Amino acid sequence: MDITPGPLLQQINNSSDLKKLSREQLLQLCGELRQYIIDVVSVHGGHFGASLGVVELTVALHYVLNTPYDQLVWDVGHQAYGHKILTGRREVFSTNRKYNGLSGFPRRAESEYDSFGVGHSSTSISAALGMAMAAKYKKEDRKSVAVIGDGAMTAGLAFEGMNHAGVADADMLIILNDNCMSIDQNVGALKEYLTDITTSQTYNKLKDDIWNALGKLPVGKRFTREMASKLEHSIKGFVNKSSNLFEALNLRYFGPIDGHNINKLVDVLQDLKKIPGPKLLHILTVKGKGYSLAEKDQTKWHAPGLFDKITGEIYKKQFDLPQPPKYQDVFGYTIIELAKKNNKIFGVTPAMPSGSSMKFMMDEMPDRAFDVGICEQHAVTLSAGMATQGMKVFCNIYSSFMQRAYDQVVHDVAIQDLPVIFCLDRAGLVGEDGATHHGAYDIAYMRCIPNMIVSAPMNERELRNLMYTAQLDENTHPFVIRYPRGEGVFPDLPPEQGGWRTEMKKIKPGTGRKLKDGEGVAILTLGHPGNFAAAAIRDLRAEELNPAHYDMRFAKPLDEALLHEVFSRYNKIITVEDGTVQGGFGSAVLEFMALHQYRASIKILGIPDRVIEQGTLRELRHEAGYDAAAIADAVRAIMAPGTPAEKSSEHTIS
Amino acid sequence: MDITPGPLLQQINNSSDLKKLSREQLLQLCGELRQYIIDVVSVHGGHFGASLGVVELTVALHYVLNTPYDQLVWDVGHQAYGHKILTGRREVFSTNRKYNGLSGFPRRAESEYDSFGVGHSSTSISAALGMAMAAKYKKEDRKSVAVIGDGAMTAGLAFEGMNHAGVADADMLIILNDNCMSIDQNVGALKEYLTDITTSQTYNKLKDDIWNALGKLPVGKRFTREMASKLEHSIKGFVNKSSNLFEALNLRYFGPIDGHNINKLVDVLQDLKKIPGPKLLHILTVKGKGYSLAEKDQTKWHAPGLFDKITGEIYKKQFDLPQPPKYQDVFGYTIIELAKKNNKIFGVTPAMPSGSSMKFMMDEMPDRAFDVGICEQHAVTLSAGMATQGMKVFCNIYSSFMQRAYDQVVHDVAIQDLPVIFCLDRAGLVGEDGATHHGAYDIAYMRCIPNMIVSAPMNERELRNLMYTAQLDENTHPFVIRYPRGEGVFPDLPPEQGGWRTEMKKIKPGTGRKLKDGEGVAILTLGHPGNFAAAAIRDLRAEELNPAHYDMRFAKPLDEALLHEVFSRYNKIITVEDGTVQGGFGSAVLEFMALHQYRASIKILGIPDRVIEQGTLRELRHEAGYDAAAIADAVRAIMAPGTPAEKSSEHTIS
Repeated sequence: MDITPGPLLQQINNSSDLKKLSREQLLQLCGELRQYIIDVVSVHGGHFGASLGVVELTVALHYVLNTPYDQLVWDVGHQAYGHKILTGRREVFSTNRKYNGLSGFPRRAESEYDSFGVGHSSTSISAALGMAMAAKYKKEDRKSVAVIGDGAMTAGLAFEGMNHAGVADADMLIILNDNCMSIDQNVGALKEYLTDITTSQTYNKLKDDIWNALGKLPVGKRFTREMASKLEHSIKGFVNKSSNLFEALNLRYFGPIDGHNINKLVDVLQDLKKIPGPKLLHILTVKGKGYSLAEKDQTKWHAPGLFDKITGEIYKKQFDLPQPPKYQDVFGYTIIELAKKNNKIFGVTPAMPSGSSMKFMMDEMPDRAFDVGICEQHAVTLSAGMATQGMKVFCNIYSSFMQRAYDQVVHDVAIQDLPVIFCLDRAGLVGEDGATHHGAYDIAYMRCIPNMIVSAPMNERELRNLMYTAQLDENTHPFVIRYPRGEGVFPDLPPEQGGWRTEMKKIKPGTGRKLKDGEGVAILTLGHPGNFAAAAIRDLRAEELNPAHYDMRFAKPLDEALLHEVFSRYNKIITVEDGTVQGGFGSAVLEFMALHQYRASIKILGIPDRVIEQGTLRELRHEAGYDAAAIADAVRAIMAPGTPAEKSSEHTIS
Repeated sequence: MDITPGPLLQQINNSSDLKKLSREQLLQLCGELRQYIIDVVSVHGGHFGASLGVVELTVALHYVLNTPYDQLVWDVGHQAYGHKILTGRREVFSTNRKYNGLSGFPRRAESEYDSFGVGHSSTSISAALGMAMAAKYKKEDRKSVAVIGDGAMTAGLAFEGMNHAGVADADMLIILNDNCMSIDQNVGALKEYLTDITTSQTYNKLKDDIWNALGKLPVGKRFTREMASKLEHSIKGFVNKSSNLFEALNLRYFGPIDGHNINKLVDVLQDLKKIPGPKLLHILTVKGKGYSLAEKDQTKWHAPGLFDKITGEIYKKQFDLPQPPKYQDVFGYTIIELAKKNNKIFGVTPAMPSGSSMKFMMDEMPDRAFDVGICEQHAVTLSAGMATQGMKVFCNIYSSFMQRAYDQVVHDVAIQDLPVIFCLDRAGLVGEDGATHHGAYDIAYMRCIPNMIVSAPMNERELRNLMYTAQLDENTHPFVIRYPRGEGVFPDLPPEQGGWRTEMKKIKPGTGRKLKDGEGVAILTLGHPGNFAAAAIRDLRAEELNPAHYDMRFAKPLDEALLHEVFSRYNKIITVEDGTVQGGFGSAVLEFMALHQYRASIKILGIPDRVIEQGTLRELRHEAGYDAAAIADAVRAIMAPGTPAEKSSEHTIS
């Protein structure tokens, strides 16, 4: 489908083009940009509400700033579609989030306008401060601006950045884009505070007084430090040092102002450009602004998939047969099923109630399931505290976000051996979100910690069994269950018809299962890729290749009995995991082999040691080389006549 | 030396014993406790200033609370010596920080009074909140108290905890122990803010008004919710919702009060016990209180080593010959040497200027070296921001604290391949600080990240060469240099007399060096343990065992040419590292072997997969099994007749 940008938007390829427009034209451009985002995302998919909410801010920033010389850091980056469209990527914007296309987030390698690569939240203040400190040291007049949402502001990293910015004496502007939302409704005391000051009369009075004072600035002349100091003084009269959370951190606070008033935004940003030092501008926006359905249900329209932009109908794939549920929903249903029987179960999610399906339990058992906001570190240490009181906490965090809480896992959970259950959602490659979101490293970074149990279910039934096992009193260790984004393998039917909701049973930690015997080569899989191996094995039948298949289930502890069987019977082994090949499950098998002095050819399939960008899961698993075709190829290669073919492995020390 | 506790202290073994004392006796007990800490630490060593600063608070807390039923969480734990002495560990306190002795930090396995294991900072609010939420759910009247310093309060985790506590409606008390110090002087906007409110007249007035209001409480009767609400109302008149940073986060703020006034502390804590919900008490203390030298130079006396408690003389070991410098000091001198020649060099440390010796540069080049406070996450992302502007940032973080910034390393540095230089100090076992501080996992958790270079110098000269290499423009990748706590190997003499300060030269990343040829077995070492291997090799000469020795220098990228040489010439290989044996350097060698289809017996020496507690470095390296004796044993074992002894390895695919 051909999507035509509006007449003004067609002319804009960078910040200089934008500067040629009049104020009236800016208003028109905002409309065109908004429409273009709606047109493209409805047909090509992607994040939606966030970018609509900052259309005016995006236009105002590039109008006022001298990008890319000035450094503009978008926090998270869901909201940067307008930024990409205005900075030379309009024509290719339909490739957004597609294989070999544009990244869904700002990315340094993609454009000089993307000053900092993002994807995870709350990095922008620290990054922009680093840029500002470098500029100060180099005596450059470069501006640094961080645009951060109120959700991202709850993460500790943002606070750490503000704490330093307040004393660093560098010239930077933090724009707090306050829309009361993360992907889900934002939570926490900071959110309450922002609502308070947004609605309070004092603050609205204050706001007007400040802008009146700013209005008297000698805009035509060079703004001197002395004038800034005078202005500061006049503002100080209204904003008391200790009367505002941000002022308490020594950031000059301005706002709140309407983030959809392009004229006001331009005026304010021009004024703020002249005020040195660290400062924060609080703007109020509506996520999904300009598309009424998205304004009304902001979580649904965060990333709605494809839709009819006129009717607002979100397209769903139609199937003739019952389909497998998402692993996420299996988690959501199962934790409730378990919690009904075990009153010690709690659920904790850091700002991903919808994505993880923890929301099911939050709705049904609000006193036992908690969204703590974008606070992975806190989520883990809170869970540890709960575990000391005998609670069985399912702490559900996306694999790549768990990197945020690594020390908490090591220091607060593993060292004291508390039986917190970590459900690592989105483990392995995640698809369209790309490099920043792949859950590629968790097997390696979890396996190296003492006391940890690290497991991955091959399907929904196994997920349920692992969840059941982890919450039993007899489990006394931290227990990781990692599973991928997306569908499992059993249809959504009653168990007696082959569905996924079978009765749960205990799996002894450190036990795998032999799925089939074979000849010459054994495939050891961990988690969902076991299904790719099973498909490969079916395909290889025609070639008279007959690999054995073991679903190992646990990267730690390893099933040593099963591995002794494997190494005694096979001297060619292929390991498969949806995790990095450096230090992961395959390496654990090598360590076992070395310890027990087996000799075998081992081929490790998994995510290669480079950054994998975005694409569909199918495309990326193919690129990484652990889909069914790659596994079949690996079997063919290892069984080819040229490769070593000892009759038996040499088991020298038993 | 026999150390006798005072007459009152002798009788105190738990919180109940304490409750039998009169108010006057409490004052005497504080004196005795302080003296006992001085007596023991001066002779046995340990952390000093922190515990002296909270003597009164410790006594007051155990006097007022019903520990261990009530949950008391000490942040970091440096300050918990008094707590340990009062809760049944007085008699064994001289074993503090010693092998098989008491841990230097609270530890759950050690006592039921240690409700949460600590060591790293800023975990206490989240942990205590988890306990409070569990108590609320279980309808228990258990109190949860977190004691946290103003330094620890700057870390993002503490902010995340407060952000949740403010809305969680659980009964918890945060005690902010404000002494303006971390180990070094505390920094950041929060510190400025605390100083502001501590010295402001409004706040002091407020304080008095609040305590007057509290003084009217009907202490004899049961304190009802209605009364609490009335009290709250009367306080609200003074403390405006938006007038205080903590109130802004919905924590009721009380204080600041003198933390050395035992009577006032007891009164206030008794009052606060009756006020439900989340609240924060701000107390002012002096680190080192009661030992004047420690009050005057708080950094020096944070953990002074052994000293004469009368004269204050800190004992230093005397040596006849020049000794090797600490790796830390070599870092500190070398970064200045490099920065004088390369004006792009910056230094960043999160609150460890003395420990890391970054202080040398901060003193000499204050515009280029920065202490950002206890903010590891921010330190890394700030460094990434600086690197985007072409700066060469040496970001120096202890290995175990780097766990706090893992996502920032992955997401902000490695994915965008920015050449930040990470100096991981205290890598490997650290000795007396024990389990929470060992830098055991970094090789594994860094090696699995794409684009990373992971190196470890065998000695000071190599450290200098690696630092030199990392800051060259030709290095375009993130560059880890890990080195241990303590002394190197070259004496502090001019280079021509064998000293460490040789001219720096480039080391090509991914190249190791052959230190000696040998027969039958090769030892591959990474970093400082190469010296243990060299010692083992000397010892083995008498037994006519002659291992080859390779200092591999890089865990990533591996020196493939050197490894091909090794695997071509030796079929028995021993790897040695001061890191975990799960997924570390040894595993990287196994991966190489599997990829290239070599066959060899490989023995991996390193930190075993369990939690190692405290002791001297010598004791712990022996326990872990990678000291010279253990390496010699491994050589003997692998060369013993019973083990496989192929004449050559089978190199089947070259």
